[in-house]
Amino acid sequence: MGEQEGITASKSGDFSEWYTQVVTRAELADYVPVKGLVALRPDGYAIWEALRSRLDERFAELGVRNGFLPTLIPESLLKLEKEHFAGFDPEVFWVTRSGGAELGDRLALRPTSETLAYSMYARWIRSWRDLPLKINFWNTALRAEIKSTKPFLRTSEFLWQEGHTVHADSDGAEKQVSDMLKVYAETVEEELAVPVVAGRKSEAEKFVGAVYTSAIESMMPDGRALQMGTSHFLGQNFSRPFGVKFADRDNVERFAWQTSWGVSWRLIGAMIMVHGDDRGLVLPPRVAPLQAVVIPIAFKERDAGPVSEAAGRALRDLKEAGVRASLDDRDLTPGYKYNDWEMRGVPLRVEVGPRDLARGEALVAVRRDGSKSGVPLAELGARASAMLVRIQKDMLEAARAAQSSMTRPAATYEQLRKAAASGFARAPWCGGPECEKKAKDETGADIRVLPFGRGEPAPCAVCGKGGGREALFARGY
Amino acid sequence: MGEQEGITASKSGDFSEWYTQVVTRAELADYVPVKGLVALRPDGYAIWEALRSRLDERFAELGVRNGFLPTLIPESLLKLEKEHFAGFDPEVFWVTRSGGAELGDRLALRPTSETLAYSMYARWIRSWRDLPLKINFWNTALRAEIKSTKPFLRTSEFLWQEGHTVHADSDGAEKQVSDMLKVYAETVEEELAVPVVAGRKSEAEKFVGAVYTSAIESMMPDGRALQMGTSHFLGQNFSRPFGVKFADRDNVERFAWQTSWGVSWRLIGAMIMVHGDDRGLVLPPRVAPLQAVVIPIAFKERDAGPVSEAAGRALRDLKEAGVRASLDDRDLTPGYKYNDWEMRGVPLRVEVGPRDLARGEALVAVRRDGSKSGVPLAELGARASAMLVRIQKDMLEAARAAQSSMTRPAATYEQLRKAAASGFARAPWCGGPECEKKAKDETGADIRVLPFGRGEPAPCAVCGKGGGREALFARGY
Repeated sequence: MGEQEGITASKSGDFSEWYTQVVTRAELADYVPVKGLVALRPDGYAIWEALRSRLDERFAELGVRNGFLPTLIPESLLKLEKEHFAGFDPEVFWVTRSGGAELGDRLALRPTSETLAYSMYARWIRSWRDLPLKINFWNTALRAEIKSTKPFLRTSEFLWQEGHTVHADSDGAEKQVSDMLKVYAETVEEELAVPVVAGRKSEAEKFVGAVYTSAIESMMPDGRALQMGTSHFLGQNFSRPFGVKFADRDNVERFAWQTSWGVSWRLIGAMIMVHGDDRGLVLPPRVAPLQAVVIPIAFKERDAGPVSEAAGRALRDLKEAGVRASLDDRDLTPGYKYNDWEMRGVPLRVEVGPRDLARGEALVAVRRDGSKSGVPLAELGARASAMLVRIQKDMLEAARAAQSSMTRPAATYEQLRKAAASGFARAPWCGGPECEKKAKDETGADIRVLPFGRGEPAPCAVCGKGGGREALFARGY
Repeated sequence: MGEQEGITASKSGDFSEWYTQVVTRAELADYVPVKGLVALRPDGYAIWEALRSRLDERFAELGVRNGFLPTLIPESLLKLEKEHFAGFDPEVFWVTRSGGAELGDRLALRPTSETLAYSMYARWIRSWRDLPLKINFWNTALRAEIKSTKPFLRTSEFLWQEGHTVHADSDGAEKQVSDMLKVYAETVEEELAVPVVAGRKSEAEKFVGAVYTSAIESMMPDGRALQMGTSHFLGQNFSRPFGVKFADRDNVERFAWQTSWGVSWRLIGAMIMVHGDDRGLVLPPRVAPLQAVVIPIAFKERDAGPVSEAAGRALRDLKEAGVRASLDDRDLTPGYKYNDWEMRGVPLRVEVGPRDLARGEALVAVRRDGSKSGVPLAELGARASAMLVRIQKDMLEAARAAQSSMTRPAATYEQLRKAAASGFARAPWCGGPECEKKAKDETGADIRVLPFGRGEPAPCAVCGKGGGREALFARGY
């Protein structure tokens, strides 16, 4: 065993270096030998699986089923919706050869699947009976990133899900858009304990090809906003070029109304940034691959037997109570183990030593606040379960308070500039693209969302013109 | 609603056309507008999800966890194990451009992940404490197929899982290889009701880069064998070039021992071929997305209310009994619906009509044999559950009998030729690559596996030399 590789950067001192250390040393992800790409290690992938399984449940409630689409999209298809293609063109990877031979038509690695999905939907949909059609795809998207790589946040390939639905009317599609945004908001807050703000994107920031984009945004501890999920109303913008139409009840053929929506592993990045501390990761219990680790402590030979037996029983009790638990009986010092599991963010540490044992107790340490308490061994399972529920709640509340303290109203341009330098600025905006662009060029802050329920009209914080409505400005990731 | 698109090809008449019709018309998969590629529709993907979830359980029992690796592999890495690279080179897709720019080093689309995984493992493994390391990846593999496309059987991109483990010693690795082959054999037989033969591949047929390959094979109704899964002992063939080594307990650094193993969606292809009939798909209940469909039948106005109410109750009872059930109340004729659900292979059809209702019964039709029986409505859930268990068992038994009838002993070359023309030939083989090659060149049959427990020595069926041991010859997919 080499020396322990803990977190040496501080979260407040060097946020970027701290983040990279936490991700790699807590063994969530690692860089592979290709620029822009990362691999997920089992602890990182298990968090993704937890999210996926929760989202799958919610999708099913909305009548969404999963499917599979291939990675390769022919250039001609990708170009069919011109605005859409122009948006992705600069970052598309192109396959030009297979084996020793040049391909006739080059193939794009999927930057997103609208084009491929809708060329299939056009074949699968015949009549109103086939609608709504709701299919989700758990896959990866590939977009060449030229800037520096950050696991979960900026990579040339990322895990995500993209849902694509087709409806007989505009109302049905718009309801899908808002239902899905709600699913995203609730899932992110409930599972990852990260609070979000929901709203619409401005025209300038919407998805290329959409009629409008709704989104959820969160504030990171470094004062930058992160887009957490998007749900797009596509109207008939794709159904027309792709011929997604249906014979309606009156036997008239009509173009369908569509939506697309997605979240990516970037959510894991947000979770790391929002909750982590100088000792490493702090995992919300609901997505933690391991919720409790039992550590037997016996410095004296004569304690080893009873301690090991009690630790084994503690592990069983925890598992029976539905806690994802594990026993660390490696021949390493307790101090080493404490640091190791703290860095990995396991919510509860259960220490079983001779002194606690004499009292019929285990010492339970909570990762998020370092608190310790004696828990009767007979109640360990139930108590640990209850603590995990409490921790999850506390983490969301703490994150909500932090996000709230980083959100400031801004009536003037100077206030906007100041607030957006380190958080969200809630500023009235006249709706003019010039004001949006001026703010972005001069302060680096763009409009993250136009929150739902935008308050009373007020003069635009940029140009002073009356009738502005609230917009959320921030510098983004 | 257009006219019904049923299966028009017969399984015995035109097997290939029958297969394509079943796959596309039962809406499992469809061709996308790129040669060699297919999409999975929700019913097809749900079968894959059922398999995945069962395999995930089995993997976890063996200490395997899931991870993620990117799709792109640099050429230099792919070339590190030369024999391995030579095996895949002709079918590799190459990315040469991103956006408008030419890439410096071209990138391969993953044909398999040994090279990328082991370059990471070399970094992740330091000492014996880190072993065994067992990670599985649910992803796709991309290999340019120049021959004709067959969904699930021959496509340029396919869904699969590839597991990669690292061990401190050869024994641990070899145990993993055989444990995993057992998991595959049991899962395929239990979930898909497709019987398999397990054994080792010959030297000529082993995985490029492996010390040896073990595999499971099944016989398809057209007399061709299908490789269902492989589990490879890699020895130190990859750990040496990739530097996968560990500090052992004695502090000496040693190269590790490795395995890799995988199954793909080809298993779904086998399931379709083995069980389907001229009316379409026949789904084994355990993987059927829908296990029972309830069809209300009311030709007269006055029956509609009671029938619809009883059908709703039947649906609830089935669901409460854990049956994946659905109600088909579309305004289509019962005959249309029967054909439709038969084509889609739903194991049970539950008809609720006024006459049955008067007797307090529903009529339950079994897809696989067309049998019908009246079932008291009060017992519907329990009876349907029991019938599904029975059907699953019957399907495996029937498939076993069919495979057995297509497996013939062959003592002479003429018998080998004849048996292998329409099934498995169990023939003694001297072990000589010349005999293997001669049989392949002249009869089209290769050695599918050397079954475990190869019986008594006998003269080689090809050259007549004594001391041959049983080999399973067949023409393959």
